[in-house]
Amino acid sequence: MTLLRLVLYIEARDRPGLLAEIMGVLRELGANIITNFGYTVDDTAHLLFIIDYGGEPDELAEAVASRIREVVEARAAELGAGAAEVLAEFIRDRPGIISLLEFYVEPVDLLDAISVLPEDERRRIYGLLTPGTLASILLHGDEGVAGEVAEALPADAIARAIATLPVEDAGEVLRKLPEEARNEVLRRLPPEVRRRLAELLRYPPETAGAIMTTSVPVLRADDTVASALQQLRSGSYTIRDTVVVVDSEGRLVGLVPVDALLRAQPGDQLEKLALRPRATVSPMVNREEAARMMLRYDISRLPVVSNDGRFLGIVALEDAARILAEEAGEDIAKLAAMEKPRERYRYASPLDLVRLRLPWLILIYLMESITASIIKGYEDLIARVAVLAAFLPLIMDTSGNVGSQSSSMIIRALALGEVSERSRIDVAYIVLKELAAASTIAAILSSIGFTIAYIIGGYNVRLGLAIAATLFIVVVLADLIGSLLPILARRLGADPATLSSPLITTIMDVTVIAVYFTLASKMLGIT
Amino acid sequence: MTLLRLVLYIEARDRPGLLAEIMGVLRELGANIITNFGYTVDDTAHLLFIIDYGGEPDELAEAVASRIREVVEARAAELGAGAAEVLAEFIRDRPGIISLLEFYVEPVDLLDAISVLPEDERRRIYGLLTPGTLASILLHGDEGVAGEVAEALPADAIARAIATLPVEDAGEVLRKLPEEARNEVLRRLPPEVRRRLAELLRYPPETAGAIMTTSVPVLRADDTVASALQQLRSGSYTIRDTVVVVDSEGRLVGLVPVDALLRAQPGDQLEKLALRPRATVSPMVNREEAARMMLRYDISRLPVVSNDGRFLGIVALEDAARILAEEAGEDIAKLAAMEKPRERYRYASPLDLVRLRLPWLILIYLMESITASIIKGYEDLIARVAVLAAFLPLIMDTSGNVGSQSSSMIIRALALGEVSERSRIDVAYIVLKELAAASTIAAILSSIGFTIAYIIGGYNVRLGLAIAATLFIVVVLADLIGSLLPILARRLGADPATLSSPLITTIMDVTVIAVYFTLASKMLGIT
Repeated sequence: MTLLRLVLYIEARDRPGLLAEIMGVLRELGANIITNFGYTVDDTAHLLFIIDYGGEPDELAEAVASRIREVVEARAAELGAGAAEVLAEFIRDRPGIISLLEFYVEPVDLLDAISVLPEDERRRIYGLLTPGTLASILLHGDEGVAGEVAEALPADAIARAIATLPVEDAGEVLRKLPEEARNEVLRRLPPEVRRRLAELLRYPPETAGAIMTTSVPVLRADDTVASALQQLRSGSYTIRDTVVVVDSEGRLVGLVPVDALLRAQPGDQLEKLALRPRATVSPMVNREEAARMMLRYDISRLPVVSNDGRFLGIVALEDAARILAEEAGEDIAKLAAMEKPRERYRYASPLDLVRLRLPWLILIYLMESITASIIKGYEDLIARVAVLAAFLPLIMDTSGNVGSQSSSMIIRALALGEVSERSRIDVAYIVLKELAAASTIAAILSSIGFTIAYIIGGYNVRLGLAIAATLFIVVVLADLIGSLLPILARRLGADPATLSSPLITTIMDVTVIAVYFTLASKMLGIT
Repeated sequence: MTLLRLVLYIEARDRPGLLAEIMGVLRELGANIITNFGYTVDDTAHLLFIIDYGGEPDELAEAVASRIREVVEARAAELGAGAAEVLAEFIRDRPGIISLLEFYVEPVDLLDAISVLPEDERRRIYGLLTPGTLASILLHGDEGVAGEVAEALPADAIARAIATLPVEDAGEVLRKLPEEARNEVLRRLPPEVRRRLAELLRYPPETAGAIMTTSVPVLRADDTVASALQQLRSGSYTIRDTVVVVDSEGRLVGLVPVDALLRAQPGDQLEKLALRPRATVSPMVNREEAARMMLRYDISRLPVVSNDGRFLGIVALEDAARILAEEAGEDIAKLAAMEKPRERYRYASPLDLVRLRLPWLILIYLMESITASIIKGYEDLIARVAVLAAFLPLIMDTSGNVGSQSSSMIIRALALGEVSERSRIDVAYIVLKELAAASTIAAILSSIGFTIAYIIGGYNVRLGLAIAATLFIVVVLADLIGSLLPILARRLGADPATLSSPLITTIMDVTVIAVYFTLASKMLGIT
């Protein structure tokens, strides 16, 4: 049976021997107690246990509650993201307790617990953390967290926290701070740290230069294996599994993984061992592009070099993976027609949410108003055959789905380099393939559409035919628009994912409505 | 100036001295020639150069074309995903050339070039590759690639290729092969490899067990640092920067990074150095969950342990990152209401595309048919106030956007553990926060909606008010539905991302249409 590390929170009427009683019950239940904390407010004891246990957290909490008298609340959860609520429950009345908890709970789990609390308690807690935990929380949190910390704490305290981080992480945290606080904090850092930070902060946040680390052993081509091992041993680097080899001008010669050092003779020159990297990037390359390159070529240490070949730093897979996950979140937000959600949900006020969401909604609303004007033009037709309106949502929805299917496939094929937006042959290939697929899909949907329209429309064959014909044309059109718009976006130098949803929807809707009413008026003999 | 590694393809009338002439021009242009290949068909020379060059690929190709007589075609591209077309152009007439190219071009780049070619040429090429390149192509390709290779090559050849891979990669490739081919290939692998593969293949493909590697140095707690270093030196492991420490029963004690080994004394026992991992997983945990845990806690080597604590393997960040990227692609496909696109676009026939896309389209179509029946019920109302139909798309589209905004935010908050689907307090928190945000958004959109409806509807105040009221209610409702459905999905144990798009759209559309026509008929005094 797997042992899970759990947090168990118990609120009970305080009395002598309560703690011993609970610990006895926990042991009987087979739990292994790692540590416990507690405090009493108004005769009520608040106790938190960290334990290893081989069963369901909920069952444990129930078992404890049933065996101990006067338990007000008992909750358990696996330590991790899901424990936020339970931890928050315990911290709520006594924020000071956090300074004990932080030795047992990972900073990112603490951050989640903190983010569940009301704003004023969050602010009190920041001041109670050790510099190391505060630094981790700033590193894992977003701009919302950093902004709150900057308001709650003096620059001195933030500088102390940041000084505990490796330089590239310090850079990442500084970028999240509001500008004024950033400068205040920078001024309070040691000159050497400040100098190295200034180098990193020179690069725009979206670039490889901004995410690379400079904390890696760098040696000369004529240095020996022994001196490389010595340097690895003596320094504290972020990258500890690879040494970088450069020539006398600082130009990158290659990388040596530490296991190659172990296999070599101590007197061997590094030049012999250095492997030319399978790829390098310039510091101004987009960070997502650099991260994708690492995945593509299965690289965990990507060297960043200047235009004249000088070694500048290393992008580590650890950072690349985080960036890919972030960018995927952004793409999904874009597909939902929203600004990039910078802040954690808990940190965003309702007004922040409105600011984030309203601009797109208004823009799309205004664009979609075109559809209202078009339909208005067919007012007479609708007045005479009102049932036509009944099929509008169905047809629009179907064309929207077809379009987003084809666009998502083409966006993927473009991203994988399977098709090129610049090749006329590729575009022709896509058009032919999509025509074949779309007309098959269209034929099947049309026949289903005919049947449904025929029945709902009161067994009207003409109406059924009009719907079927519209569906056929609209599905094929939507498929082509959906597949060609990402290509067009790329040719114009835009990100295909941005263009997708809202714009495609509007273009599609306008097209669909025009086709529908034109066809319907012709086929029903009404103009 | 950064040197880029380019491929340059030139097609020109063949003549004595042509190659020397081109090489001279390239040197004049400052290009550094790494290698070149060529062949002649019907008096036309096809030449491919791999060069380092400090400028734009297109400009280089143009410059070459203008300085050499009788050039039919000249194309250049940076080596990488973008070079697929250029490489394919060169391979097209003479697939045999691939066996020279494979020493200069990364397998994944070759795969992209191959995937641009027609199917029959792809099949010929698979047989020309060295086992190592074929193995890499199988590893980077998807089921479509594996299926083609299985049809084109005998099981012997595939087994030879797979035998060059580390065991966990071999497992990944085997899973992609069609079942019959998989068994054939397995039978031809050495017994020792087969045994280790059988262990991995025991775990379902979506689990941590299926992606872990067993190729890592494992030592006992009472072994010394010297013996750990010796084992790292002598073996060829997938994980070379960490050793695993277990007790006499094979239970995990901890991990030791190689730099800690370097810093320690040779005689030190590993027990002293072993760090308890910050997290472990069971082999049956979902692989995406394991990968997310690694990102959350910044772990690059995640141990997989059995229920009784025995060490089974390591999930490496390299694999976790690839899985997160894949899953992000799947989520985006789900949002587009499609089956997971298993195959590369080039490898999928139009019929494959239809199979992938049609089931969802039909399902959604049938569900959306409900809207048609509802609207049909208001036929009389529409016949009398036909302009009502004009605003249907606008209102539906807006509510759809609002709903997908709120659901994407809540899905994110759930994924980050900021809110828990089980906590009633959290659900209340979300409802209140969303009510506040949504009613502000609704108020602003309503006033814009009033204005537009008033104008388009021929300065009809009642119509404007009906639209404004509908918008207000519908926006608030859509927001709440969008935010609560992911929570409901989680409580039912489903993936919130799956539920999102198609189902929410239909539920939303039905609600919106009911509200719209009910309100409109009341406010316009028509029933």
